[in-house]
Amino acid sequence: MLALCGAALLVSESAHAQAAAAQARGLTKPSPLAPSEIVAAAPASDWVAIQPSDLLVMDLPPLAGKARRVVIQLIPAPFSQGWVGNIRKLAAAHWWDGMAVTRVQDNYVAQWGDPNGETPKAKPLPPGLVTVPESEYIVHPTYQRGDTKAQRQTLLSLGVQDNGSLKPNDRDAYSESTTLYLGWPIGTGNDHGRPSIWPVHCYGMVGVGRNLSPDTGSGAELYTVIGHAPRHLDRNIALVGRVISGIDNLSSLPRGTAELGVYATAAEHTPIAQIRLGSEVADLPRYQYLSTESASFARYADARANRKDDFFIVPAGGADICNIPVPVRKAP
Amino acid sequence: MLALCGAALLVSESAHAQAAAAQARGLTKPSPLAPSEIVAAAPASDWVAIQPSDLLVMDLPPLAGKARRVVIQLIPAPFSQGWVGNIRKLAAAHWWDGMAVTRVQDNYVAQWGDPNGETPKAKPLPPGLVTVPESEYIVHPTYQRGDTKAQRQTLLSLGVQDNGSLKPNDRDAYSESTTLYLGWPIGTGNDHGRPSIWPVHCYGMVGVGRNLSPDTGSGAELYTVIGHAPRHLDRNIALVGRVISGIDNLSSLPRGTAELGVYATAAEHTPIAQIRLGSEVADLPRYQYLSTESASFARYADARANRKDDFFIVPAGGADICNIPVPVRKAP
Repeated sequence: MLALCGAALLVSESAHAQAAAAQARGLTKPSPLAPSEIVAAAPASDWVAIQPSDLLVMDLPPLAGKARRVVIQLIPAPFSQGWVGNIRKLAAAHWWDGMAVTRVQDNYVAQWGDPNGETPKAKPLPPGLVTVPESEYIVHPTYQRGDTKAQRQTLLSLGVQDNGSLKPNDRDAYSESTTLYLGWPIGTGNDHGRPSIWPVHCYGMVGVGRNLSPDTGSGAELYTVIGHAPRHLDRNIALVGRVISGIDNLSSLPRGTAELGVYATAAEHTPIAQIRLGSEVADLPRYQYLSTESASFARYADARANRKDDFFIVPAGGADICNIPVPVRKAP
Repeated sequence: MLALCGAALLVSESAHAQAAAAQARGLTKPSPLAPSEIVAAAPASDWVAIQPSDLLVMDLPPLAGKARRVVIQLIPAPFSQGWVGNIRKLAAAHWWDGMAVTRVQDNYVAQWGDPNGETPKAKPLPPGLVTVPESEYIVHPTYQRGDTKAQRQTLLSLGVQDNGSLKPNDRDAYSESTTLYLGWPIGTGNDHGRPSIWPVHCYGMVGVGRNLSPDTGSGAELYTVIGHAPRHLDRNIALVGRVISGIDNLSSLPRGTAELGVYATAAEHTPIAQIRLGSEVADLPRYQYLSTESASFARYADARANRKDDFFIVPAGGADICNIPVPVRKAP
């Protein structure tokens, strides 16, 4: 890096280049591993395959000869409420083909759907979409007679104790506690005395645009977070997935100049060439995520919260849930 | 908004458009004010003028005929350590003219400086720049004999009690507590028993690139945060200001494809036409920020943490410090 451009550089995910340079300069004290180095050293068994049928592949038209593909992982049970089924139907119907990115608001969201929205010129939605009630923004995990050991362990890992109460375990401003569960960032809390869990709005999470309550959206209008986590939206909007590849194709689009970052003119829209389920895409790489239940992930999360690699002077002693992004890679 | 494009919209800073639409549809229950409405209603006396001499004005070459200006507010005392003085000298020397944006890393930072960095081809720095020690990343506020009532009140507002100890007051993952002070987001903690305070890495904050410790950078190499707050950098890098206008000119640039988001080729750099202190720029608007010590700001912060305007179903009951951005406006 230094050899490349000679600039004084802020080191981020990997202190590797600077550490190597430091060692070359004779500073040979080995440094604790950077988070990226822990991830790189994780054994194959700590990686979980993401099924192509759980991916949504959005292709924007090439720009300056460069393909623009965004890959979204759909969220699994117990968070895959009816919106996810709707999205599978919309993708199977090729409904988004010819739709557009209509809104990019700085430090907030990029949003896509029908530029004609709910006007008479709107594109008809495919049949069979369900209407989902607001109550499904939250999941209530409970111990059941006959739970397997694994199911009980899962509830424990979410902070739900045997007596059904919830154990607060961190310093989150928006929930009793947060955790990473089955590869997803989760908030937990008490909903009228019942333990409740919900996915949270970290960078890259994908959610369902809606009108005023009690409307919860169909799933046809989607957005992704391109700024600081807007956690005030948690439990207020459905989250259905996250971008695992190519988010820069959305986050680097010009910002809209009308209210809320909507593009002032249709000419500014970025058209969507197509959106397909991953199972319909021939040339798709196989993706994996680092199991949030693995020992490697525990080490990675600890290193994110206590940076001790060469660049750092003062480890923070903590990290908010959205500053521990779940590592995703192409299968080697 | 609905009339404009008819799309199902995610409402963000202002629920005004949807609330108006709801009222038009006969849902006339008045809604608690949205944060943006509280800001709009703040009296003139709650706004603080930002002096032009405390601004750094970066002009990138026009793109498709559109001017690209980024305005940065320099941080005041007690956080204006030597780096800020260096930046004033660099701007006065017109040192950045012809330099470039050399790195844009998604969900992290955009960085600018000398493309030739520390190589023999580097542009010489102006004379008189100071070297600042790492200890100045943190400020130690203390009660002094003879403190005015206002000074004591300020310390109290930062959580520093009369006996010099620090009172934790929130659920922040990175510090004992956080607050907004003189218009800036601040973390507080104990440093070997001494109360300590420091500015934090929220979206748009501007910091000083550096090499490995004990290097702290000169101020010639700067970056701004364009993603989720990288709070692990707090107390590890100097923060010197924040972007108050035009950050989209940096956050929407193409991402670099080399390691750490550095551009792989010089052809991808965005050149800097010029950077000037605001006092040297003829046509600069007068900017103001909403006093973080005002009643309006207290109401705004409470509304950010407890959204009850029409769009919201479940108020979060809290907000992290970086989700309460300090409102800035052009003087009316």
